Amino acid sequence: MAVQDPLSPLPKLASIAREAGVSVATVSKALNGRADVSARTRQLIAEVLERRGHSWQRPRTARGSLVDVMLQGLGSAYALAILEGVEEAAWQLGVDLVVSAVVGRTKHGQPPPAWLDRLGARDSAGVLLVRTMPTATQRAWLADHDIPAVVVEPRAAVPRGLPVVAATNVAGARAATEHLIGLGHERIAIVTGRPGVPCAKERRAGYRKAMAVAGLKIDPRWEICGYFQMDDALQAARAMLGELPEPPTAVFACSDAMALGVYQALGEHGLRVPGDVSVVGFDDSLAAAYATPGLTTVRQPWPELGAAGLAALLADRPPARVEVPTALVVRSSTAPA
Amino acid sequence: MAVQDPLSPLPKLASIAREAGVSVATVSKALNGRADVSARTRQLIAEVLERRGHSWQRPRTARGSLVDVMLQGLGSAYALAILEGVEEAAWQLGVDLVVSAVVGRTKHGQPPPAWLDRLGARDSAGVLLVRTMPTATQRAWLADHDIPAVVVEPRAAVPRGLPVVAATNVAGARAATEHLIGLGHERIAIVTGRPGVPCAKERRAGYRKAMAVAGLKIDPRWEICGYFQMDDALQAARAMLGELPEPPTAVFACSDAMALGVYQALGEHGLRVPGDVSVVGFDDSLAAAYATPGLTTVRQPWPELGAAGLAALLADRPPARVEVPTALVVRSSTAPA
Repeated sequence: MAVQDPLSPLPKLASIAREAGVSVATVSKALNGRADVSARTRQLIAEVLERRGHSWQRPRTARGSLVDVMLQGLGSAYALAILEGVEEAAWQLGVDLVVSAVVGRTKHGQPPPAWLDRLGARDSAGVLLVRTMPTATQRAWLADHDIPAVVVEPRAAVPRGLPVVAATNVAGARAATEHLIGLGHERIAIVTGRPGVPCAKERRAGYRKAMAVAGLKIDPRWEICGYFQMDDALQAARAMLGELPEPPTAVFACSDAMALGVYQALGEHGLRVPGDVSVVGFDDSLAAAYATPGLTTVRQPWPELGAAGLAALLADRPPARVEVPTALVVRSSTAPA
Repeated sequence: MAVQDPLSPLPKLASIAREAGVSVATVSKALNGRADVSARTRQLIAEVLERRGHSWQRPRTARGSLVDVMLQGLGSAYALAILEGVEEAAWQLGVDLVVSAVVGRTKHGQPPPAWLDRLGARDSAGVLLVRTMPTATQRAWLADHDIPAVVVEPRAAVPRGLPVVAATNVAGARAATEHLIGLGHERIAIVTGRPGVPCAKERRAGYRKAMAVAGLKIDPRWEICGYFQMDDALQAARAMLGELPEPPTAVFACSDAMALGVYQALGEHGLRVPGDVSVVGFDDSLAAAYATPGLTTVRQPWPELGAAGLAALLADRPPARVEVPTALVVRSSTAPA
């Protein structure tokens, strides 16, 4: 038998870390025997363990330290890419991931009630919430049990005290809009995402900022809402094109799915992409590359978001907000005005 | 504090199950308070727990019982779809999943050595291996520690004693070939997968069976190897078309990626799909639906494979082999001869 059950439960990583004055990641690395932990730090951690009746010789239970990852769902390529980033980072740090999903299990897309029962039965070192948000009761429970939590890519306003990891949505949207302005466009419409979702608001802010800095006025009829859905974007773009005497020469859609809805609306109006109207999306999904013409878009850093989320979760003092850079990917859907 | 650490570690689910003469899934359900466990079974399990010094009143640690899922990688849509199926089944059964991946961490795509250290530090109820295979040493360790393992979609020959969950590869390939025969094709080529991979051999067997049953002879030059790669399939198909005085009228490619390589080789030879040559793939990947023309293919039951894998892992007596049905998806790449 290589593994023995400990006589008493090993203290939580977070608690060892606090007492030793180092980060949880450092404790995890030290207990895993990683070379990149100084002798002094090892000594500090060993002292904390000794004070609590554990010897350095018995690090195995801590080695199996678990971090919970609760995803909105596993049905999207985004989820996979984020999880891939988290998993790689977890491997580097020597922690294991307990993965679960919300999917259709609750009415408002929050973690199901049974979740914390199960989480409490293990010794979870922390909770990474991907595109989902705990209820107030769940947050209180986590705080009571001293279990840290971090939200990646929030889909709703984040309560104070809950650290957030997100893409640079403002800068990404600004870069997309400035790309169009650089091509000579002045009448640039925007298809916004679902109101109330932080990234929807941030991307609209980036668009407005770019327009303002370039001294371009925004006709309110250019700001239409597509709720992040292809169909809603199609209908909103149809209505806008039907209403405006002169169509915009460019459209910034705040997601790739909405950009494809815009493609269709433009096609129905006999307008070519990019000959008559340039279109930019946001996400750099598979669909962006497969679309005809290939969609110019803003790449979301999915794996990097996951890795940054885990790093924030295991940090000594998690920052309130971490932003991971996006990148403009230019394909064939944009052309000079 | 809703959760207390137990005075002594709770016995493994598998061990309770064995002593109570029920399946691990049943123990898990009973400890989770599920209604679909009979009073008699509850009583049996409670007696086992009492004999071991645990009362029925303290099921929390067992509730958090963990199952390990080791995936070849998280970089493919297959992985996500399988994981989705496992996660849904785990939710139903009240077990939690520890998810990790092999990716580039070992030379031969086997789980990394540190894996079992980490797994041993938790009380793993079993290991689901998706497209990866433990080494002989790792298998021996698992057996010594009484931790069951099941392989889903093996990419190498499976040693005796390790249960396997796979798609009906023979029947799927046979259905694909019979679809072509039903359209009047007689000269049907096959692009096989990487030799040594079980599903590659099984799909070739299904093709040969369909041809034999229909009384059709196979020209050995029609059997070309594409190693499951688009590029290798392209080159093999190119060589075949260059060599044969008369091309086959249909090609069954043992993966969608290889079918797309065949598309390209046919195009280079001025042959249209399906006008001149019909093509069938295997997988029903996103690419099959996006391809022009849409690719007729065999749907792999990814989520169902994952769910069946978990069920086999937690079964009282896991069957040596479980096969999950495939389905023929007819699109536009096949036409009458």
